[in-house]
Amino acid sequence: MTKRTDIASLGEFGLIRHLTENIVLKNDSTQKGVGDDAAVLAYTDDKAVLVTTDLLLEGVHFDLMYVPLKHLGYKAAVVNFSDIYAMNGRPKQMTVSLGVSKRFSVEDLEDLYEGLMLACDIYGVDIVGGDTSTSLTGLTISITCVGEAAKERVVYRSGAKDTDLICVSGDLGAAYMGLQLLEREKSVFKGEADFTPDFGGKEYVLERQLKPEARRDIVELLAGAGIRPTAMIDISDGLASELLHLSAESHTGCRIYEERIPIDYQTASLAGQFNMNLTTVALNGGEDYELLFTVPLALHDEVSALSGVKVIGHVTGEALGNFLVGRDGGEVELKAQGW
Amino acid sequence: MTKRTDIASLGEFGLIRHLTENIVLKNDSTQKGVGDDAAVLAYTDDKAVLVTTDLLLEGVHFDLMYVPLKHLGYKAAVVNFSDIYAMNGRPKQMTVSLGVSKRFSVEDLEDLYEGLMLACDIYGVDIVGGDTSTSLTGLTISITCVGEAAKERVVYRSGAKDTDLICVSGDLGAAYMGLQLLEREKSVFKGEADFTPDFGGKEYVLERQLKPEARRDIVELLAGAGIRPTAMIDISDGLASELLHLSAESHTGCRIYEERIPIDYQTASLAGQFNMNLTTVALNGGEDYELLFTVPLALHDEVSALSGVKVIGHVTGEALGNFLVGRDGGEVELKAQGW
Repeated sequence: MTKRTDIASLGEFGLIRHLTENIVLKNDSTQKGVGDDAAVLAYTDDKAVLVTTDLLLEGVHFDLMYVPLKHLGYKAAVVNFSDIYAMNGRPKQMTVSLGVSKRFSVEDLEDLYEGLMLACDIYGVDIVGGDTSTSLTGLTISITCVGEAAKERVVYRSGAKDTDLICVSGDLGAAYMGLQLLEREKSVFKGEADFTPDFGGKEYVLERQLKPEARRDIVELLAGAGIRPTAMIDISDGLASELLHLSAESHTGCRIYEERIPIDYQTASLAGQFNMNLTTVALNGGEDYELLFTVPLALHDEVSALSGVKVIGHVTGEALGNFLVGRDGGEVELKAQGW
Repeated sequence: MTKRTDIASLGEFGLIRHLTENIVLKNDSTQKGVGDDAAVLAYTDDKAVLVTTDLLLEGVHFDLMYVPLKHLGYKAAVVNFSDIYAMNGRPKQMTVSLGVSKRFSVEDLEDLYEGLMLACDIYGVDIVGGDTSTSLTGLTISITCVGEAAKERVVYRSGAKDTDLICVSGDLGAAYMGLQLLEREKSVFKGEADFTPDFGGKEYVLERQLKPEARRDIVELLAGAGIRPTAMIDISDGLASELLHLSAESHTGCRIYEERIPIDYQTASLAGQFNMNLTTVALNGGEDYELLFTVPLALHDEVSALSGVKVIGHVTGEALGNFLVGRDGGEVELKAQGW
């Protein structure tokens, strides 16, 4: 009998590691392959070309019941830009492939493209390739983004060093609470014809979910302050998961402090309403698209002075593991839960 | 009422033209955007970075009933390489995103990756990015390929000139007849438990459908002979469709000669069995992944001497339109039918 191993048994990251672990790189121009936010290609002596790609499937990555197509286009573009910024680069070009079922009209796709193009205008990116094909079910969006960086400015996940400071931009957990809110209203909505959800006072978490931004400003702020992070990653799957990636790639451990995790008051208030543990929301919520990075301890004052950046902990030796230090001083091991 | 235009009313090429026609390029490094086999990026003074992407959906672009996953992986990679060769470039890196439903096992994906990696080994390409996610239905494969070319060697669809010779590599229509054969055996197979299809003497057309190759050899042959085509495109949607793209982008017309279209005897024999017009099969079959290119008339002797290349006609002024000259001397206007 043919052996048949369930995909779920490996998990998403385990599966891709399993499939790609035997890859032997052949080309001089391939500086970094699988395993970071973007691939790094060296086509010139001084500049690196960065490539990242994302596949979004209806019903898995988005729900058109509450996501307008224009917002979806905007977000689909921005999450790719975020991966380029996470390499300390600038996004420059993008290709878009769509699989579209008969359910969608030309006007629907115009809305989607309006969002894609708005994001491209704001972030200075060119759409350089696009194709559409028929799909049997729903909408599939595949985006590849190409960016650039001076070679010596590229920041990998693997550069964190013992005693480095761990920093995070913005605040965490809001996009996840926005999703919870939308899911709740969707289930209330079912069957009611003229239902108008009340989103008053919750605009911030909704915007974080529906129209996230990539942190170009933070990358520019760091450059302006002359700070090159030792390691960086964007927070798409939740702070805990990204910290574990960073530690694994850098062969380090970490201590982060619960009281230092930045959280907006709308996120806190909604977590209360939903009876959710706020720290869990901030650690595992995902889709924040904030930047998580490390800097040498000596830069403590410089990095603390940056607006929108918070020091949340420090890098340790690998043997010390990855822990959250609670408000009571107790330590809890970080696990990548996702949702 | 909201206007709702059926996607089918624009057609695949019309739709993508409609969606992308308002794109204004912003970056100096964007040399060529939407509208050729690959985008051309200028990150250095002497080299061009080429980017092409392809989205393959189960049930639309492939049928796992008769396509083994290893072959599918091989083909998915090769069709992207073909787009890079069509720019007169060399493929160097590739990213792979998969959407996978529960129907698939880890071993299935290993088979798929085996095919992808085999193609990469043969063509000297590195897999530099990969991710997998859950899909609700079937298998989705999104591949982006990055290649390079010396800037002055890049060949666009738009460079054909009046009196240029039109050349094609290999032979046409075989992949399409291979598909017909597989579709027929599939319908015979339905309901029969121990059915073994007889593919004897039809290996060539099956291989053309299941395991196509990209024409690296032709690109190298041309380089070796010091010939830089004036325009080039790969034949994925059928000779007629690609000729019309080339003429439209070059603002030219063409005359090709029915008796000069290269066709393998297995293709001819099967077209007879299936009661199909052989010229129609060769013009509109698709998935040949041969190269269609133009060279100045003065290179007639040089290009005719190349093995595996055939001169099938010549470029004319735009006003003269695009025509097939039949064996009887009659002219038929070329239309992109597809299947």
